[in-house]
Amino acid sequence: MTIDLNADLGEGFGVWRLADDDALLGVVTSANVACGFHAGDPVTMQRVCAVAAERGVAIGAQVSYRDLAGFGRRRIDMPASELAADVLYQLGALDAFARAAGSRVRYVKPHGALYAAVTEDPVQAGAVLDAVRRFDPALPVLGLPGSEIAAAAAAAGVPFTAEAFVDRAYRPDGRLVPRGEDGAVITDPGAAAARARRLALTGRVEAVDGSSLAITPGSLCVHGDTPGAVELAAAVREALTGAGVALEPFAG
Amino acid sequence: MTIDLNADLGEGFGVWRLADDDALLGVVTSANVACGFHAGDPVTMQRVCAVAAERGVAIGAQVSYRDLAGFGRRRIDMPASELAADVLYQLGALDAFARAAGSRVRYVKPHGALYAAVTEDPVQAGAVLDAVRRFDPALPVLGLPGSEIAAAAAAAGVPFTAEAFVDRAYRPDGRLVPRGEDGAVITDPGAAAARARRLALTGRVEAVDGSSLAITPGSLCVHGDTPGAVELAAAVREALTGAGVALEPFAG
Amino acid sequence: MTIDLNADLGEGFGVWRLADDDALLGVVTSANVACGFHAGDPVTMQRVCAVAAERGVAIGAQVSYRDLAGFGRRRIDMPASELAADVLYQLGALDAFARAAGSRVRYVKPHGALYAAVTEDPVQAGAVLDAVRRFDPALPVLGLPGSEIAAAAAAAGVPFTAEAFVDRAYRPDGRLVPRGEDGAVITDPGAAAARARRLALTGRVEAVDGSSLAITPGSLCVHGDTPGAVELAAAVREALTGAGVALEPFAG
Amino acid sequence: MTIDLNADLGEGFGVWRLADDDALLGVVTSANVACGFHAGDPVTMQRVCAVAAERGVAIGAQVSYRDLAGFGRRRIDMPASELAADVLYQLGALDAFARAAGSRVRYVKPHGALYAAVTEDPVQAGAVLDAVRRFDPALPVLGLPGSEIAAAAAAAGVPFTAEAFVDRAYRPDGRLVPRGEDGAVITDPGAAAARARRLALTGRVEAVDGSSLAITPGSLCVHGDTPGAVELAAAVREALTGAGVALEPFAG
Repeated sequence: MTIDLNADLGEGFGVWRLADDDALLGVVTSANVACGFHAGDPVTMQRVCAVAAERGVAIGAQVSYRDLAGFGRRRIDMPASELAADVLYQLGALDAFARAAGSRVRYVKPHGALYAAVTEDPVQAGAVLDAVRRFDPALPVLGLPGSEIAAAAAAAGVPFTAEAFVDRAYRPDGRLVPRGEDGAVITDPGAAAARARRLALTGRVEAVDGSSLAITPGSLCVHGDTPGAVELAAAVREALTGAGVALEPFAG
Repeated sequence: MTIDLNADLGEGFGVWRLADDDALLGVVTSANVACGFHAGDPVTMQRVCAVAAERGVAIGAQVSYRDLAGFGRRRIDMPASELAADVLYQLGALDAFARAAGSRVRYVKPHGALYAAVTEDPVQAGAVLDAVRRFDPALPVLGLPGSEIAAAAAAAGVPFTAEAFVDRAYRPDGRLVPRGEDGAVITDPGAAAARARRLALTGRVEAVDGSSLAITPGSLCVHGDTPGAVELAAAVREALTGAGVALEPFAG
Repeated sequence: MTIDLNADLGEGFGVWRLADDDALLGVVTSANVACGFHAGDPVTMQRVCAVAAERGVAIGAQVSYRDLAGFGRRRIDMPASELAADVLYQLGALDAFARAAGSRVRYVKPHGALYAAVTEDPVQAGAVLDAVRRFDPALPVLGLPGSEIAAAAAAAGVPFTAEAFVDRAYRPDGRLVPRGEDGAVITDPGAAAARARRLALTGRVEAVDGSSLAITPGSLCVHGDTPGAVELAAAVREALTGAGVALEPFAG
Repeated sequence: MTIDLNADLGEGFGVWRLADDDALLGVVTSANVACGFHAGDPVTMQRVCAVAAERGVAIGAQVSYRDLAGFGRRRIDMPASELAADVLYQLGALDAFARAAGSRVRYVKPHGALYAAVTEDPVQAGAVLDAVRRFDPALPVLGLPGSEIAAAAAAAGVPFTAEAFVDRAYRPDGRLVPRGEDGAVITDPGAAAARARRLALTGRVEAVDGSSLAITPGSLCVHGDTPGAVELAAAVREALTGAGVALEPFAG
């Protein structure tokens, strides 16, 4: 029994840092590396790719809207053709660093507002998928099960892997409780670890109303940019291995 | 007898345009495509790559300092490691569009102030070369003969192709007369065509003091962003083919 | 009888140009000057302000979303507090150039997608108005009559001036026909001039269904970035003065 | 006996933070606020200005090269006219937030590579001064004594205030020991406090060779972006007040 553990990495820019990339690269099996549009200057991309490749962590392209000032958290209503070109640009840029490090981009995961957009909006989902297909039709997309991008991937024959969030609360319909709301984020390492173990072993997670959701994720996402993120991720990892679940990259 | 004809292309950004890309892509054999740092949004990069690939025009990466506001014409004193990462980022981004169009990046030519820097400064030349080598050590660099980057390429075993400018005046030492000075730019199509023919047939060009310079270029550069650029480029092409010189890409 | 004639100006960036600023500054009475977020580098802002001040053309702040790549034409879903801060930043930046030229910012007109947003969305309209009020509560806003920002201005006691577009088709509800649709843009100078004269003399314009709309504009907008824009603007000016309508800035 | 204590503030961008702005605003008397070119998004500028105004901390414009990726630490060889326009843009933008908070920009202090440039290069010093003069000729410039910008300010009749660095080592010629070198930065709060007290009481500081430099500063600079910065600044403040030196803004 195996599962993947993914986190957002390389989300600094120039002098600015967000997460403790080095520590997280010792815990996760897949790194969603920022590609320069919401975060991720070239030096940071290079360093994260080098460490990831060295440790056998799979490199994924965390593609985003062009929005450094808003960290990619603001929905931009842009034509599908422009979005597809922006995504392809980011894929190529990251792949250069991944290949220079002896690896390559193994999967794609949209970031922030684009993640939300491709979950709900078939046009923006189609644009991202169009870029992925032109870059490499065998490249898996990581996203929310039941999302528009999952449907688009299925239609286009592009591999799709469902992920579950161990530190975010779920609504009964399988969507995430929005960040602003009470209890949206789970910060207790023990609680997150328990959810991770249950998700890995049973494919289910409890929603905020107490109902049980079936997700069957190929990957579990931990957030890296919150205080205590490394401890939480380590607790999740330990709980999984302790339950006999091996951690390995879902892609490549 | 063959030679290559190269021009800077895709140097718009968003709504803004500079040269008549489509017309120039009907004249040149190599396109130095802007990669987003001094110009070149992803949609423009995609369109230029598609047309270039369709017409058999070789796609080169016109890498630059990160400087949209200054169009890459301002020297930036940055550490070599940061410059190398910036160049690698641009190479990867452009290659994604080139490959999506059925081609790939065939060569590298620094732009503007970076072109000047790698001509004179061994540190910045080394940084660019370091990026090229990590991207693909077989990728040729296009530049000024006798430049620092020519020396660095030779030392590293990376192919280097010398270019000559048909519409720029030369100093007796083989450097270009700076743009601000009188007679720096040759705008008369006939004069440019004559220089091109002589360069292709004899490998020589006349400097501003009347002396004769030996260049033996593998490629001739025409500028695309001046009024009458397309006419000048077309006159150069006609003069070359009329003299029995076949035009074809120097790389790939 | 007087009316104002406004156009978007200074919408280049670095080496890139859009409209013929100098020619338009000889025709209009109010210049909507780009402030650096969708267009308008500092050198351009400075030059346009200097010429405008010299010719008695009123300087308005053409504030926008932060979106050089999309020219401010893409709606960005950003929190009101962030939008208000972005607008205040732009107001201050432009005012420095206006004052250095011996004038000052006389009015505010949102650009592109932000213009559309403040027409329909009370939250974004409120954010722009909040910035205007903190900058100078006596600063008029120029916009579409019946818009959300007109209502917000009225509620806050900020002056509002309605504008009409002489080169855009209207729907019967007073909104503009979207740019993509047939007949959305009027390019014939004679037709635009006739609309301008009728608007100035009667306050009415014909909608696409033939119905007559009452607008009573304080300013008429001509677009500067279309081929023939200067000729169209000059034809409008001539038609107005020929009809005895004096052209002068609506603000200041 | 009084002196001013200044620090760089507001040097985050979007989600990214650098210093503990709120804590430092409880210690310093002058805040060098980043204006958006090397750091400082509009929301951050607004918040820092509001707190500074509330606490009686003077707001200074920390103007910079346009270089988010390099945090303004890379020298950019740009024409004086472009640099002057960039500085004026930043002055105006910050002033809008300062005025909205009930204050105004009280002084100018270049940042990073621009600080170094205006110390050594009369052309770039002249460009910055040109912008200051056009914005407000009574606005003081804060800089290194004996610098080119000090000379330019004297020639133009613009006030100039010399500053000393309590946490940086000096060469015997009054220049700072470059950051990369051994002992360039003083991190011990006690040592910094002792230097501050001596500077305030005697106008002198010890250079790295043991010689004594006469500076007679109007302001002491503490860095805010190093670990322990707040403690060091607080120790400096306590040492000064304990020695009977009152802390108050040098400008306005």
